[in-house]
Amino acid sequence: MKKIVIIGSGNVAEALALSLAEQGMAPVQIYARNVESGSALAARCGAEYAGEPAQLAPADLYLIAVSDRAIASVSGSLDFGDAIVAHTSGSTPVDALSSKIRHRAVLYPLQSFTKGRSVDFREIPLMIEGCSAKALECVREVAGALSDRVLEVDSHRRAAVHLAAVFVSNFVNYMYTIGEELLADTGMDFSLLKPLILETARKAVESSSPRRVQTGPAVRNDFQTKNLHCEMLVDKPDLKNIYINLSNQIWETSKKISRK
Amino acid sequence: MKKIVIIGSGNVAEALALSLAEQGMAPVQIYARNVESGSALAARCGAEYAGEPAQLAPADLYLIAVSDRAIASVSGSLDFGDAIVAHTSGSTPVDALSSKIRHRAVLYPLQSFTKGRSVDFREIPLMIEGCSAKALECVREVAGALSDRVLEVDSHRRAAVHLAAVFVSNFVNYMYTIGEELLADTGMDFSLLKPLILETARKAVESSSPRRVQTGPAVRNDFQTKNLHCEMLVDKPDLKNIYINLSNQIWETSKKISRK
Repeated sequence: MKKIVIIGSGNVAEALALSLAEQGMAPVQIYARNVESGSALAARCGAEYAGEPAQLAPADLYLIAVSDRAIASVSGSLDFGDAIVAHTSGSTPVDALSSKIRHRAVLYPLQSFTKGRSVDFREIPLMIEGCSAKALECVREVAGALSDRVLEVDSHRRAAVHLAAVFVSNFVNYMYTIGEELLADTGMDFSLLKPLILETARKAVESSSPRRVQTGPAVRNDFQTKNLHCEMLVDKPDLKNIYINLSNQIWETSKKISRK
Repeated sequence: MKKIVIIGSGNVAEALALSLAEQGMAPVQIYARNVESGSALAARCGAEYAGEPAQLAPADLYLIAVSDRAIASVSGSLDFGDAIVAHTSGSTPVDALSSKIRHRAVLYPLQSFTKGRSVDFREIPLMIEGCSAKALECVREVAGALSDRVLEVDSHRRAAVHLAAVFVSNFVNYMYTIGEELLADTGMDFSLLKPLILETARKAVESSSPRRVQTGPAVRNDFQTKNLHCEMLVDKPDLKNIYINLSNQIWETSKKISRK
């Protein structure tokens, strides 16, 4: 069985470590600068904790789950021997890993992780890449133990996926915060929007394409409602600007579709 | 038991008619200009179909589920006697109903309906308003038979809820279509994003506030990733514009929060 060390103790490190442990592939070590979160995560998955370069355990695979901008320096500052080293970032090329490492790889889980929330790894697309046959084979094996959806995707396409994820997750969540703000302004609670939020997500996911289920005043080009909404946002120029911009885009996009 | 007539045969009319029928309160008549969809809906809920003003059946409650801009003309062109007449629109004031009608009311379901998709009405917030005690009492009774979440909300606040719904549903769905486009550009399928879309919605709904679960390069002010994304969108100026605008807003909003 492969010996795995996880480097980092953030959201992605936690999700990977716990999910590996569930599959009987618990990491042997959590290596993290943050003593508190690192040793807590190590305890939860039955691994040892280390925080100093000299303490790094020997392993077959090192999974680097640190912030994107730390990947180069972390990978350059540790001695991995001839082991496989994979980062877990969507937008970072595999070559951001130090060129000193012979077997560079990527294992990117396409999901948004939050501490304390467990997610079903089996359904999460895991995008893998390897700079050597040995590296690719190793991440393919580990990814396959975690998920039923393992895809080999190069750095260029993985970056496109990550960009798409920013729109459908980060920007979507921001739309939720705007909804919350607009309700709060009139003394109502965000919880009212919850059935609508869940149904909107389910509908898009169950349809053949979200374009087909686009509804609302923008796609109907309903001037009356759009004007009313703009009047309501007169004291919130930033939100009014977003409203107009997105409404125009929805209308332009729908025209392109219907012309096809 | 109340006699109910539904006017219209679109998404909202269908959802209300079928849900009333499930509760043993099937409408006695579907009144709709569109013969095909009107008579089909009538058949599905065991109601008669009518399409001419003279055919309008006597009833206790007329539920007008037509497009927002048709509410005034439809409500002014039919003879409702002394019955209660309610429209089902979020952004339309109760007084858009013809002033000839004595018992004007609103029954607005806060949900996005699509033909052929059944939804659980019990969890849908139903926002009611009445211009007379009799009108309010009637829509309260009917709404209460359909849903566990009936709220009395005036036209002004209901419009704010509808505006919030545009952000969390229509604009969110547009973000999904952008994600689909970005994946398609690189030969990948929208289905890859489905677990992320569902988890993002669930996370927001299960958190105390979506603000607390905001993630991504924008909230971290991660210039490196933002610049990379802008370069990737260089041939899509409209999407680049949305990206920059929303990223800036997320960052500005998070600064305001952390200052609190």
